[in-house]
Amino acid sequence: MRETTIKVDRKRCEILCVGTELLLGDILNTNAQYLAQGLSKLGLDLYVQTVVGDNEARLENAIHLAMTRADILLFTGGLGPTTDDITKEVAARCFHRELYMDEDALREIQDFYALTRRAMPVSNQKQALMPRGGLLLKNPQGTAPGCMMTSDEGHLAFLMPGPPREMRPMFDNEVAPILARYSNGGLYSKAVRVVSLGESRMAEMLQDLIDAGTNPTLAPYAKDGEAMVRVTARASSKEEAKAILDPVINEVLQRLGRHAYGVDVPNLESVISEKLQQQGLTLSFAEAGTGGLAAQRFLSCELAQSVCGPGLSAMTTGQLACALGLMDALPENTAEACALLSQHACKHFGTTAGLCTLVSGQELACAVTVLGETRQYAARMPARGADYYRTQASQAALDMLRLMLMDREA
Amino acid sequence: MRETTIKVDRKRCEILCVGTELLLGDILNTNAQYLAQGLSKLGLDLYVQTVVGDNEARLENAIHLAMTRADILLFTGGLGPTTDDITKEVAARCFHRELYMDEDALREIQDFYALTRRAMPVSNQKQALMPRGGLLLKNPQGTAPGCMMTSDEGHLAFLMPGPPREMRPMFDNEVAPILARYSNGGLYSKAVRVVSLGESRMAEMLQDLIDAGTNPTLAPYAKDGEAMVRVTARASSKEEAKAILDPVINEVLQRLGRHAYGVDVPNLESVISEKLQQQGLTLSFAEAGTGGLAAQRFLSCELAQSVCGPGLSAMTTGQLACALGLMDALPENTAEACALLSQHACKHFGTTAGLCTLVSGQELACAVTVLGETRQYAARMPARGADYYRTQASQAALDMLRLMLMDREA
Repeated sequence: MRETTIKVDRKRCEILCVGTELLLGDILNTNAQYLAQGLSKLGLDLYVQTVVGDNEARLENAIHLAMTRADILLFTGGLGPTTDDITKEVAARCFHRELYMDEDALREIQDFYALTRRAMPVSNQKQALMPRGGLLLKNPQGTAPGCMMTSDEGHLAFLMPGPPREMRPMFDNEVAPILARYSNGGLYSKAVRVVSLGESRMAEMLQDLIDAGTNPTLAPYAKDGEAMVRVTARASSKEEAKAILDPVINEVLQRLGRHAYGVDVPNLESVISEKLQQQGLTLSFAEAGTGGLAAQRFLSCELAQSVCGPGLSAMTTGQLACALGLMDALPENTAEACALLSQHACKHFGTTAGLCTLVSGQELACAVTVLGETRQYAARMPARGADYYRTQASQAALDMLRLMLMDREA
Repeated sequence: MRETTIKVDRKRCEILCVGTELLLGDILNTNAQYLAQGLSKLGLDLYVQTVVGDNEARLENAIHLAMTRADILLFTGGLGPTTDDITKEVAARCFHRELYMDEDALREIQDFYALTRRAMPVSNQKQALMPRGGLLLKNPQGTAPGCMMTSDEGHLAFLMPGPPREMRPMFDNEVAPILARYSNGGLYSKAVRVVSLGESRMAEMLQDLIDAGTNPTLAPYAKDGEAMVRVTARASSKEEAKAILDPVINEVLQRLGRHAYGVDVPNLESVISEKLQQQGLTLSFAEAGTGGLAAQRFLSCELAQSVCGPGLSAMTTGQLACALGLMDALPENTAEACALLSQHACKHFGTTAGLCTLVSGQELACAVTVLGETRQYAARMPARGADYYRTQASQAALDMLRLMLMDREA
């Protein structure tokens, strides 16, 4: 391989997603958005995204075109073991790089199969082929390692696998750190998370800030029964970004009041977990018609082990009552039934707080008990489908719990 | 406009999505998938999808490239009223078509504003510009009508708005009927769903069929702890497609044996729900460390109401034991602990079948009890993260249950 000097002036990126399944519409291309967001955060320019199928001639043509327009090419897909998977072979040819068998990569793939007590299919060998002078990108999530290669003209290519579960950590951990050096002054952003307030209502409350914003800019988003406003600054350092962002974030928080539940927090349940821990409380769940969604949301919280007790999930409140050993008939009023069930969940599971949700058709009810104090709520939802109802029910109950915990802090 | 004859031989399509917001990753490109699915159903060939921003030079370049590769161009985005919206202007220039003010279209936009009791902003006038010789595509969902135009070389372009709520009905009602005449006979496909077998192993078992396949073609996929093989036929009628597909599907099923759990079924849990109902069984759940995922998967099954009892979810098997009123210490062996818990779930919840899962670090264990008979399983998983562990645990338990129910059928 000839020694190449990589130009460090303003770089242009392109994304090439490879896979006939994308052209057939079998899968949604979430990779393109993930990479676009990543490049945007890094302050790198992206002008074109292309999707091509598993076809040599067309992929080769797409790569040659991209090389005329861009310096950095990001590929997803086509690194699998089957004969359909041709991205590495074709990209190496376009970049005039020979492929060789990387013994370390091969051993890792063999180890992966050994761990799961299966023999490695011969077809997986080709996943260990690497371009000469290239760099292997680790894939702890699967058998296909990625790779980086350079062309003699100074192009950079990053080849990543198609499954998002494998592609995302590879981009975050292996690709982004390399790309960071080409950043044109970074973008820094903070997200204010908002609950129980629609996106358009939130945007109205912030309209003058949104209209006036150039640096920072304010972008409102709606997301799974929540809203969010992203405040983004372009700056040459973290300190400069902070000076630009902080006054605007404070203004946003003041206007949104108790609707804003956090800045750059992972989610509502993590905020609640922290409050539960601070107040020394434990929480159990009794959920009807939601598939146990409220309890499930806590799973990814670090503190869940210490603040969450068991969760019971059933189709109806009657089943919940039975399972909690409640023999009397439940109140007909759904909010009152939930109130009783949240109290009994505390008793049955030995926790200091209990949360009950109910979805029945378009009816939503929920109740939360904290140290004997119970609040309840019921509403009829617009016709939107089961996922929406479940999200709304868990959201309503969790926000009720958050406000109760805040009131106890006061 | 010169009279043009549109060739009716095999047409190639391309999708061009226009919008800087796509390049920033602010929105997910669901339009591309929707159009890809639509073209696939119509039996039209799609080889390339491109995304470009709201930039004249780059859009013009992308259109010229697409015109060299394809006959039919489908555009989304850039039909709005702002100066950023340039798709129609640039496409008309590439197609050598003059734009004129369409009075009917203008009136419709004015009417739309009158209906919502607002004055029409002057900027919206440009949405009523139409290419000479083109065809207006109606948009009952918004102010931007779409349009169709032809080039002198016989290209066809369809310009549709970006918001999916507006684009989808326009494609279905206005564009698809025109495209149907270029269909190369429809595509018909069936999906064989596979569990407990990796994609590459499955592909090996079917390799000769995959290699030989032209009509039908076989495409293997991996998907959330499962695999799938899609068998696709090109045919001029449903009957012809059936005659092409059936023998191959049968061969695939025979080779994959019990790993294949269904053809064109929604998912594993719906197959299990049916078997439970046929055998008059009800199922309860006790899950540790999975957030109740196994139980939750049944939520979307139509039969869930009649076959599913309550589900208990907790962080540890100890918590589960307590909540089920099991006072003795659990066996140290995790599979045996799961076996005991699946039996107690049946007793506690009064069901005839019980399923227990455990995820603890990278350790997976599960057990299923059906009418007193219990099977159990434990394994160590490769390091892949919490979502993977949960999926694998629910998958292992559900497949164990499926096989037990199949054995009872035999």
